[in-house]
Amino acid sequence: MKRYCAEFIGTFWLVLGGCGSAVLAAGFPDVGIGLLGVALAFGLTVLTMAFALGHISGCHLNPAVSIGLWAGGRFEASALLPYILAQVAGGLVAGGVLFLIASGAPGFDVSAGFAANGYGNHSPGGYGLGAALLTEVVMTMVFLVVILGATDPRAPAGLAPVAIGLCLTLIHLISIPVTNTSVNPARSTGVALYVGDWALSQLWLFWLAPIAGAVLGAFIYRYLGSDPS
Amino acid sequence: MKRYCAEFIGTFWLVLGGCGSAVLAAGFPDVGIGLLGVALAFGLTVLTMAFALGHISGCHLNPAVSIGLWAGGRFEASALLPYILAQVAGGLVAGGVLFLIASGAPGFDVSAGFAANGYGNHSPGGYGLGAALLTEVVMTMVFLVVILGATDPRAPAGLAPVAIGLCLTLIHLISIPVTNTSVNPARSTGVALYVGDWALSQLWLFWLAPIAGAVLGAFIYRYLGSDPS
Amino acid sequence: MKRYCAEFIGTFWLVLGGCGSAVLAAGFPDVGIGLLGVALAFGLTVLTMAFALGHISGCHLNPAVSIGLWAGGRFEASALLPYILAQVAGGLVAGGVLFLIASGAPGFDVSAGFAANGYGNHSPGGYGLGAALLTEVVMTMVFLVVILGATDPRAPAGLAPVAIGLCLTLIHLISIPVTNTSVNPARSTGVALYVGDWALSQLWLFWLAPIAGAVLGAFIYRYLGSDPS
Amino acid sequence: MKRYCAEFIGTFWLVLGGCGSAVLAAGFPDVGIGLLGVALAFGLTVLTMAFALGHISGCHLNPAVSIGLWAGGRFEASALLPYILAQVAGGLVAGGVLFLIASGAPGFDVSAGFAANGYGNHSPGGYGLGAALLTEVVMTMVFLVVILGATDPRAPAGLAPVAIGLCLTLIHLISIPVTNTSVNPARSTGVALYVGDWALSQLWLFWLAPIAGAVLGAFIYRYLGSDPS
Repeated sequence: MKRYCAEFIGTFWLVLGGCGSAVLAAGFPDVGIGLLGVALAFGLTVLTMAFALGHISGCHLNPAVSIGLWAGGRFEASALLPYILAQVAGGLVAGGVLFLIASGAPGFDVSAGFAANGYGNHSPGGYGLGAALLTEVVMTMVFLVVILGATDPRAPAGLAPVAIGLCLTLIHLISIPVTNTSVNPARSTGVALYVGDWALSQLWLFWLAPIAGAVLGAFIYRYLGSDPS
Repeated sequence: MKRYCAEFIGTFWLVLGGCGSAVLAAGFPDVGIGLLGVALAFGLTVLTMAFALGHISGCHLNPAVSIGLWAGGRFEASALLPYILAQVAGGLVAGGVLFLIASGAPGFDVSAGFAANGYGNHSPGGYGLGAALLTEVVMTMVFLVVILGATDPRAPAGLAPVAIGLCLTLIHLISIPVTNTSVNPARSTGVALYVGDWALSQLWLFWLAPIAGAVLGAFIYRYLGSDPS
Repeated sequence: MKRYCAEFIGTFWLVLGGCGSAVLAAGFPDVGIGLLGVALAFGLTVLTMAFALGHISGCHLNPAVSIGLWAGGRFEASALLPYILAQVAGGLVAGGVLFLIASGAPGFDVSAGFAANGYGNHSPGGYGLGAALLTEVVMTMVFLVVILGATDPRAPAGLAPVAIGLCLTLIHLISIPVTNTSVNPARSTGVALYVGDWALSQLWLFWLAPIAGAVLGAFIYRYLGSDPS
Repeated sequence: MKRYCAEFIGTFWLVLGGCGSAVLAAGFPDVGIGLLGVALAFGLTVLTMAFALGHISGCHLNPAVSIGLWAGGRFEASALLPYILAQVAGGLVAGGVLFLIASGAPGFDVSAGFAANGYGNHSPGGYGLGAALLTEVVMTMVFLVVILGATDPRAPAGLAPVAIGLCLTLIHLISIPVTNTSVNPARSTGVALYVGDWALSQLWLFWLAPIAGAVLGAFIYRYLGSDPS
């Protein structure tokens, strides 16, 4: 039970911190943190929680990561469903808290943003479905290679939270203009529900592509990391 | 006595570095560091001091953190008062030094912002009391979860300063637009005294909310981190 | 074979992440990540891959680094050619994936910049051949000193990925305006092929200068690091 | 002899990287790295060199640091002069290389910048002598507390380069607007000689204040860090 609570709180922090920085601070006049600040924020949610809760739940905070770790032979199938439920619940509560905070300022309009993921007309840079799909698959694929590699017993001990957190920062530095960056179905769901409409009708992509990429990445590392020499 | 001196110097650095970067460098024409730079500066004050003084005082630098660590069973009640006094004194001296430096340039106006925390008309983004309260409680709550988790014996040894410092950076990336970000009564007091007026009359919130959040976070981690398995 | 695959995937990530952030996100309206974000992205590609794959291939991701490590007595000559081929192949595939993604938005024009390296009229800041040559030689020279020093048995264990990754960030912070920063022939080749024309005719410099600098840096560290005292 | 060469190369990198990022990249149109990028660059020069050369020379790269370490009982008086000479020489060569590179672009004007330190009319933000003196003394004082504390045997092993490098970043985040940030006489001298004129006539402050601050910081840590309990 504690593991599920840890996943709930961790994913709550990922969505509140990552999407919160995007909604509240990215476009602040003159001194806003921009996409660079949002990328840093997403990565630091994972870095901080991996140090704080890694020893409790493994700190996946992401259904695609849980599935990828299972595909990589590092996570038991029986815990997949409760982990994913806890992650989605954490994301949804975070979306609600962020909605409450954001509503506290004049002029807030949830449909004008709220950091939902999208493609086509709802991609920040107008990227089509193909580019969005390719981006999400490749980004999550490499994310899993880094997660599996940095937690390999042969990698430097204790530093996986730094590698994994900053990998999420890097992924956002590349791909926010394409899809607002998901690589995480719980993060996408956590805000899409409040935006409704197009965000919900495009949500399928941000479950499908990250999970496909994660499984691909797991197979790549299974090959690369096997048979230590 | 050395522990109190360490808390004094550490909190001096937190307020001088964090608020100093905000007052002196955030809005510098064309090349200013913006809210992203201020967020980084606040986090690095804690990161640097935790490496430098953590072995002397534990490096709390924050009354809410000291109280949260006590609520989490990690700090003795008898040291609470001297720690908090040292922290507030360090913050006040830092505010004074910053005032002296800032006065050295033409056009400095302390009432136009001296990085004081506020809500309503004095929130950078115009956020009301409710949003400010919710933000400060939730941010400090998660801050304590990260502090208690990253210093858990099961977490990677020696890296807690990185986790905790960058958590403070993350908190600022999210919440400067809401309250200018406190999560630390000593930091709020250290500059409010020089601004006077509204900053003093709103100061109660930045004692109440961080302490409430810290206690909440401590209870959460007491549950999550108990009974190692 | 796994070592070569690791070099292929790592260099794929370096070029996709570094050049991808430059092409997709650097100049995004109002909230773009700028040269600072691109510098961070390049460094994080190396940091993440060094943690993930360092134990498999050593994670060079760069023909100049492989040659410099060989000149520094840390890498066998017989593996040089397959490493370099894997690196260039990874860079070229990354260039192709980036081309596909970038083509997914309206108005993409590969000749208007695809993060290719250049000098003279094709230097971002208009720097001539001499300045470009000097910059690339000196930057790669210091890069190798850092790589050889941070992986010296006397350096702090496990932190070389942080030192080396952030050194690449630093190199980009200094030199993007001069040449768009190469210090890596595989990175230069990976995008030059898609730009063609001037990018190909200037490509010689971004093989010659990084390799010369790497060998120079290797000799410097051979002297500095020899005979531990 | 190797120790002196290491100090030469390390200080060369500090001045080339820190001042180079300021001169070449800070004000680049639209996507320039700004003061935040310069602050990061200065810190990363120290972080990278401390990992690469710390085991050879201790990696001071700064006359004020060498003197502060001597005052703190961590460095022998007999090596002070050769260390300082090597540091100043490294800074001067770096200034020369930077001058060569910067001259490679049209419109370069050494008197309009070159990252020299100054006060009054030559302070970036117009700060007077008093504010400049106070800033440089306090910043270097805290810098030495962090250096001595993070290299204390009781501090986390191996992470001092991170703490010290990021402390220099933090110092720049606060104080570039005041003096362009020195805290390092070798860095100030390394560029002042090329600017000449006012930069040379104000150079005394950037020897005096950092050294005074460093000695002050050493005495503070001698007290705080003594008699481990």
